[in-house]
Amino acid sequence: MAEEPVRFAIIGCAVIARKVSRAIELSPNSILYAIGSRSIDKSRKFVKDNGLSDAIKFYGSYEEVLDDASVDAVYMPLPTSLHVQWAILAAKKKKHLLLEKPTALNVAELDQILEACESNGVQFMDGSMWLHHPRSDKMKALLSDTTIWSDHFEPPEFYESNIRVRPDLDALGALGDVGWYCIGAILWAKNYELPKTVTALPSVTKNKDGVILACGSSFQWTETKQVATFYCSFLSNVSMDLAIYGTNGSIRLRDFIIPYSESSASFDFTTGAKFLDRHIGWNVKPANVEVASELPQEALMVQEFAKLVKKVKNSESRPERKWGDISRKNQIVLDAVKKSIDLGFKPVELC
Amino acid sequence: MAEEPVRFAIIGCAVIARKVSRAIELSPNSILYAIGSRSIDKSRKFVKDNGLSDAIKFYGSYEEVLDDASVDAVYMPLPTSLHVQWAILAAKKKKHLLLEKPTALNVAELDQILEACESNGVQFMDGSMWLHHPRSDKMKALLSDTTIWSDHFEPPEFYESNIRVRPDLDALGALGDVGWYCIGAILWAKNYELPKTVTALPSVTKNKDGVILACGSSFQWTETKQVATFYCSFLSNVSMDLAIYGTNGSIRLRDFIIPYSESSASFDFTTGAKFLDRHIGWNVKPANVEVASELPQEALMVQEFAKLVKKVKNSESRPERKWGDISRKNQIVLDAVKKSIDLGFKPVELC
Repeated sequence: MAEEPVRFAIIGCAVIARKVSRAIELSPNSILYAIGSRSIDKSRKFVKDNGLSDAIKFYGSYEEVLDDASVDAVYMPLPTSLHVQWAILAAKKKKHLLLEKPTALNVAELDQILEACESNGVQFMDGSMWLHHPRSDKMKALLSDTTIWSDHFEPPEFYESNIRVRPDLDALGALGDVGWYCIGAILWAKNYELPKTVTALPSVTKNKDGVILACGSSFQWTETKQVATFYCSFLSNVSMDLAIYGTNGSIRLRDFIIPYSESSASFDFTTGAKFLDRHIGWNVKPANVEVASELPQEALMVQEFAKLVKKVKNSESRPERKWGDISRKNQIVLDAVKKSIDLGFKPVELC
Repeated sequence: MAEEPVRFAIIGCAVIARKVSRAIELSPNSILYAIGSRSIDKSRKFVKDNGLSDAIKFYGSYEEVLDDASVDAVYMPLPTSLHVQWAILAAKKKKHLLLEKPTALNVAELDQILEACESNGVQFMDGSMWLHHPRSDKMKALLSDTTIWSDHFEPPEFYESNIRVRPDLDALGALGDVGWYCIGAILWAKNYELPKTVTALPSVTKNKDGVILACGSSFQWTETKQVATFYCSFLSNVSMDLAIYGTNGSIRLRDFIIPYSESSASFDFTTGAKFLDRHIGWNVKPANVEVASELPQEALMVQEFAKLVKKVKNSESRPERKWGDISRKNQIVLDAVKKSIDLGFKPVELC
């Protein structure tokens, strides 16, 4: 039996949908089957503007997409406030769900979405593309090594993660749009161990409507004395820095959310740095570690998602819960940052 | 009349004195004239171990150095707690003062030192070498340009400075030893405008004696909504990162306190960064800006100090107050970070 590709529909013609529509076409185990928007003209225009196949169906409402029995999975880049409504309906209609981040306005909403996916047996994943780049695996392998984390030091580990970004991806506040990635990278580096305390930096910039334009936070893990900070802003030049500092090494990159180029990405790696005699220089300079990628990271994300969907379709396994768990922890921490800001930058205890 | 070099004495044979003794020899307008330690054997050993000239005098007490009328200036790398006593005595003995950082335990002490320098007409400078590297001027020129700081944005400017270091320069706590540089770099980037509020990050690591091993802080400038953070630690791999983010550009370097090599140093500069169509990459990558240096930065520091000393000696001008003002602001902010830590990470208002 020939391998049949997973048939995707896109619900909502956001800017980011242009990137993901291409990723769905690039991924070898998926095809773009339908586009749904609030008007059929918008859907038609999206197909035309992006040079997509004439065979792609377009719909003038989200409901029609979800009622099309040929659609296996939906990619949903709707505004965050609409997620809970449409994601739950998609799950009820047995559509596997690739949901753009931030996943929801708060963890209570996300839990409703995850519960709908669970009870309807559909796969969930959020749209954090960078996690799927092989560079992330390479960095994680180095991080898991005692090359960076000394087993012998007291406190045994130490790291500081620092990220700033300013994409123009969404009309949402900087915390939801950009902070999502910052929080995700910190949790990723910590193997998803939630911090004990979340304390927003005592400075937040909002526009006249109260939308966060810039904010930051620090996280503390009490036992290991580890610390992470992030700052995210819509107001500075585009930056996507991630720096992780361990007892014996450090990793730094400047394009962690969107690599500078598609075919390969790199990071800097320093280990065992010392000063030369008389402190007039260093014994090492950062090494640049290059990691090739056969497909753009967004296509790798679609491929991974479609692989899981096929396993569910073929009754080989239940949906993989890992991705929902990751999204949920991201959302819990994001909620805590927002709460700390709302409380006047007071610490919020998590666990 | 031939130009006579400024005659330096070093008081205290700390590790850093090895670096500065070489810098004094490298600087064309200064010579190393004497070494003073608590024992004459230690002084003799210092001269021998560092291959210094046999002509250098060595003394077995600090007082003898200060009583030698041929000594123009002293470089003082003593433990911080001894600064106030010996720096004031040096000034009273009309010795120009190059004082290792941190300058004092608090600003009240530093004010006594500065007052002694002022009333005795001697030049003061602290040992922050990196300020004297031509790379710093190059970066400042770029920062002063609207290439980075937009005049048109509201809030008009935005920046985030982030530094972490772990030198083994001193037995003092990380805040005094390492945090000094972090605070100095942030003030430097802000043209020495003090922040409105200083709030320590709610995590500090101390050893059993209560010495700070790791801490951090955020700074806020209320009117411009600018933010800076730093983290300094004795517990992580050696790192000396500085990142400055503006509305239209960013500057990053990883060796701001001690350049990787002596002959030239570099920083990365990004301006006008945007995403490519569909957000599948960037329009620019960081440009590496290389800045050559004829002398090591510590020799440039000595040269600048000796130049000012000679002007005073030749009665051409009063001591330059700029360097004391810079040290004082650094100390004020350092005091505020310490106060915020002692208050349980409460905000400390500065102005």
